[in-house]
Amino acid sequence: MTLSLFDHDAPHGEASRLVAFSGNRLDRRSEHRTESELGDALKDKATRYFAITQGRLAMRVDGAAPQGLLEADDIAAMQPQHADAVLIGWDANNAARIALPVGVAAEDLPTPFKAIDSRSVYRQALLDEETLGAFAQGTSLVTWALANRFCGACGAAMAPEAGGYRRRCTACPHVVFPRTDPVAIMLTVDEVGDRCLLGRSPHFPPGMFSCLAGFIEPGETMEDAVRRETLEESGITVGRVRYHASQPWPMPHSLMIGVYAEARSLTIARDTAELEDCRWFDRAETEAMLANVLGEDKASAPPPGAIAHRLMRDWLDWRR
Amino acid sequence: MTLSLFDHDAPHGEASRLVAFSGNRLDRRSEHRTESELGDALKDKATRYFAITQGRLAMRVDGAAPQGLLEADDIAAMQPQHADAVLIGWDANNAARIALPVGVAAEDLPTPFKAIDSRSVYRQALLDEETLGAFAQGTSLVTWALANRFCGACGAAMAPEAGGYRRRCTACPHVVFPRTDPVAIMLTVDEVGDRCLLGRSPHFPPGMFSCLAGFIEPGETMEDAVRRETLEESGITVGRVRYHASQPWPMPHSLMIGVYAEARSLTIARDTAELEDCRWFDRAETEAMLANVLGEDKASAPPPGAIAHRLMRDWLDWRR
Repeated sequence: MTLSLFDHDAPHGEASRLVAFSGNRLDRRSEHRTESELGDALKDKATRYFAITQGRLAMRVDGAAPQGLLEADDIAAMQPQHADAVLIGWDANNAARIALPVGVAAEDLPTPFKAIDSRSVYRQALLDEETLGAFAQGTSLVTWALANRFCGACGAAMAPEAGGYRRRCTACPHVVFPRTDPVAIMLTVDEVGDRCLLGRSPHFPPGMFSCLAGFIEPGETMEDAVRRETLEESGITVGRVRYHASQPWPMPHSLMIGVYAEARSLTIARDTAELEDCRWFDRAETEAMLANVLGEDKASAPPPGAIAHRLMRDWLDWRR
Repeated sequence: MTLSLFDHDAPHGEASRLVAFSGNRLDRRSEHRTESELGDALKDKATRYFAITQGRLAMRVDGAAPQGLLEADDIAAMQPQHADAVLIGWDANNAARIALPVGVAAEDLPTPFKAIDSRSVYRQALLDEETLGAFAQGTSLVTWALANRFCGACGAAMAPEAGGYRRRCTACPHVVFPRTDPVAIMLTVDEVGDRCLLGRSPHFPPGMFSCLAGFIEPGETMEDAVRRETLEESGITVGRVRYHASQPWPMPHSLMIGVYAEARSLTIARDTAELEDCRWFDRAETEAMLANVLGEDKASAPPPGAIAHRLMRDWLDWRR
């Protein structure tokens, strides 16, 4: 049998399909935007909105399930900031989706709306996977738009173009495009001892351990970032690196790149400023952690939608 | 024989080691910067500089080979802008490396210096791989620093911290970190016809074809970006996606993520605004293109350091 370039021994065809925030199916048409589309969408009754206040999503909470996609009438009383609105795409029925900041503070939203932070929207599964994916895009772009109201090169006002997908300085030639920050997140594996390396950040929920992670810096490969971050945080030397999955992560606008990293040393020298614990866990311990998601008294893993959970689960399930 | 998680059938252990700009070996210490290190490095005679004017590297051109790393005395007459200097790391001898913008225009550099654009530095192999990798980091950070002299949230001045690795607004709570833009670059393969898909952008050198590519957007997985970009640019539907290599790309500060993409359709519908040609090439044609790098009269491939070249070469050499 001839193996295809695309065959591999991972437990899933595409692990990136199994993580939270990956279900976005909007047609972005980001390459072919006209300057009238955002205005047209704002006038269209079929358009639906993600309204963001102080980084949180305004949700309607009077129905059986909270609603994250609002209508124009819903946001009219929230001081919608149309100047920083972003047309994020169109659904299968050609109805537009707009993400925009609103001026009413989170605690002052009118009834029946409530502002929910992105992490809670995700952890509490308040949106279906497709809407959650579109929300990831929308909130990332609103955060970016508000961080680019003025030109970083000269300080003058920026003006949005292409439905908010580009911002151009009103005084100098500077143009900015949406920002996505690549982050390497790695399950480092000791194949001889059949163990994986996990750490605890001080801001994690009690008992939770997860994969080490860090931003990929300018001027380094993804693999070198994995080796650098693992060494800095745990003192462990990494050899080979194997890509596994990616995940959009809208807090505020990252791309998680999930990999397996091969340990070449075993003695942990933890970065005490970054981690309050860092340990090797064997397969039985890792299984127990995945089962004990967010348990309070025992070690636990991040929830199933997290790419760290995916890396741990798929390591256990790998064909050997 | 038990296969390791890290074994695979690619022709190289780590293809990311074989692309240009990947040789950076500086110790960044970016997690543990003190506020005095940049000032200390500026006083140290052993420190070496990448001096950037109008996006180009000031190189000393009076020796046998052009020099990209300059001494403090070299840059003294170039109006060094210390306020936007970035301490990028330390070499194996603990000598610091600083990248900084200089005020003298490219055409006015004093003898024996000449300003060379990043693409020419790379194409003409003017720096060894390790220095070229450090230059990728340095020029990316200088571009980012100059694009963040003012706060995007409020328009006030930003002040550098941590040796230039962070910029904080002097008037509001906004803080910015170095920017790296992930780009998906894909060799789309028709496994049945044993062909690969390449395109020609209007700004390519005459005869050159390369992989399709595009920025990964907020709110999408890397794999979805590959499928979206391939469909937008060529009309080809992509199924499976396999990661192959990554490459820092300092024009201006991208991370190229190189993958193989499995074609699920064959009829090309080219985006005429983006591409002036897009075609399937068989193995013999691809071999000829790789051999005819930058040839003028026949189809040619990007040069060996390009990740597109790597993807083409490794597709041909894959164990089958």
